[in-house]
Amino acid sequence: MASNQENVKLFGMMASPFVSRVEIALKLKGVEYKYELEKGGNLSDTLKKYNPIYKKVPVLVHNDKPISESLVILEYVDETWKQNPILPSDPYKRALARFWTKFIDDKCLSAARKAAFTIDEKEREKAIEETEEAFQVLENELKETFFGGEEIGIVDIAAVFIAFWFPIVQEATNLNLFTSEKFPKLYKWSQDFTNHPIVKDKLPPREGLLTYFKARYESLLASK
Amino acid sequence: MASNQENVKLFGMMASPFVSRVEIALKLKGVEYKYELEKGGNLSDTLKKYNPIYKKVPVLVHNDKPISESLVILEYVDETWKQNPILPSDPYKRALARFWTKFIDDKCLSAARKAAFTIDEKEREKAIEETEEAFQVLENELKETFFGGEEIGIVDIAAVFIAFWFPIVQEATNLNLFTSEKFPKLYKWSQDFTNHPIVKDKLPPREGLLTYFKARYESLLASK
Repeated sequence: MASNQENVKLFGMMASPFVSRVEIALKLKGVEYKYELEKGGNLSDTLKKYNPIYKKVPVLVHNDKPISESLVILEYVDETWKQNPILPSDPYKRALARFWTKFIDDKCLSAARKAAFTIDEKEREKAIEETEEAFQVLENELKETFFGGEEIGIVDIAAVFIAFWFPIVQEATNLNLFTSEKFPKLYKWSQDFTNHPIVKDKLPPREGLLTYFKARYESLLASK
Repeated sequence: MASNQENVKLFGMMASPFVSRVEIALKLKGVEYKYELEKGGNLSDTLKKYNPIYKKVPVLVHNDKPISESLVILEYVDETWKQNPILPSDPYKRALARFWTKFIDDKCLSAARKAAFTIDEKEREKAIEETEEAFQVLENELKETFFGGEEIGIVDIAAVFIAFWFPIVQEATNLNLFTSEKFPKLYKWSQDFTNHPIVKDKLPPREGLLTYFKARYESLLASK
C-alpha cells in the first residue's frame, strides 16, 4: 500500500464535476494532495505539459507521473491506495460497476446538459426525453442506499453530476425533470450521497453555481 | 484462476471490430467459448435480455452472467483468466493503457468512420484532418513493436479497427489517409498486429469486407 506522504497533486478547476470525482475518491482514501487551481481559457503550461492530448482538468500527478481522464484516475486511485475500495473485488461486480460508470458518461451527462441548455423547443423536448429514459434506467438499477451498496462506490462517485450539479442546473434553467415524484429512489440517493460527510466536504458552494448557471442560461436566451 | 472448462458464450456479429476485440482476448487467453451469431436488424431475444440497455453485441456470458461493452469485457477477461495478461500489472502503466483505449474509442473511431463515409467534401476534409491528427498521436506514442511492448496488450486489441478495418474501409472509399509514408510506425504496427497468429485467426475475410464497404459507399454516393 502506498503511503499518504507521497507527492500527490491534483490539477483542478472550480466547480467541475469531473474534478469533484477525483477529490471525493482521494478524500475517501484519506490521501492528502496539493490542489493546483487552473482557470478555464487560461490553462497553465504545466497542465498543458501534463495533459497535452486533451489539455483539460482533472490531472492527477503522483510522484511526477501525470494521469488524465477522471474515470481512469479513479481506477488508478483505487489500485494505488487500497483502503476503502471504490471498486468491488469480484470481477463480475467490477465489470458491472465499469458498465454503469460508462453509461453515466455516455448516456446521462450529455443528454442532461442538452436538456438544460438547448433553446430550440423541439430539441429540448427530445433531450429531456433522453435524459428521463437514462435516469429511469438508473432508478431501476438502484437496489440499496448507494450504487456501491451500503458504502459509496465508483458508480456513485461517477454520478456526482446527477446528484449535485443537475438539480442546480435544472433550477437555473426552469426544468422540472429530476424530482422525487418521478425518480423517488434516485432522488433519495442524490440526497444521501450529497449529504455524506466525505462528499459534502468536496462539493462547491451551491449558491455560486446557481448564480453562474442562471447567468449562462439567460445569456443563451438573450442570444436566441 | 478460472478453469477453461467453464460455460463461456460470446454473442457476436459478422465483421464487428468490437466483437473481434473480445475474440482476440479470449484466444490469447486460451479460453474456449461458444460463439452465438447475431444478425443486425434481427437480434435474438436472448441478446436483448442480456443487453437490455444497448441491445448490441458483443455480450460475453460467463456462467450465465452477461457482460456488455467491449472494453469492459476486456478488463473482465483479464481479471478472470490471469494467463497472458493484456493489462500491465503496474498501476501507472495500467492507467496509461486505459487512457489510450479511451482515446481510440473517443478520438479515432468516429473520426475515421466519418472521414470514410461522409459525402459532403468540406465535412469529409474536416474528418480526414481529425483522423490524421489522432493517428499522429498514436504514431508518436508507439515506442516498441506493439502498444503493449513486445507482446500484444489491451491497447493493441482496442485498436484492431485501425489495424484491420480501416485499411479496407479506406480502399473501399478512395481515401489515402493511413499509409506507410504518413504513419510509418503505425503502419508497420498494423502489419505486425494483423499478422500475429492469434489475431490473424480471429479476423474476418478481407475480400468480403471490401465488397461490403464498397457497396455501402456506392449506395451513399448514389443517394447524394
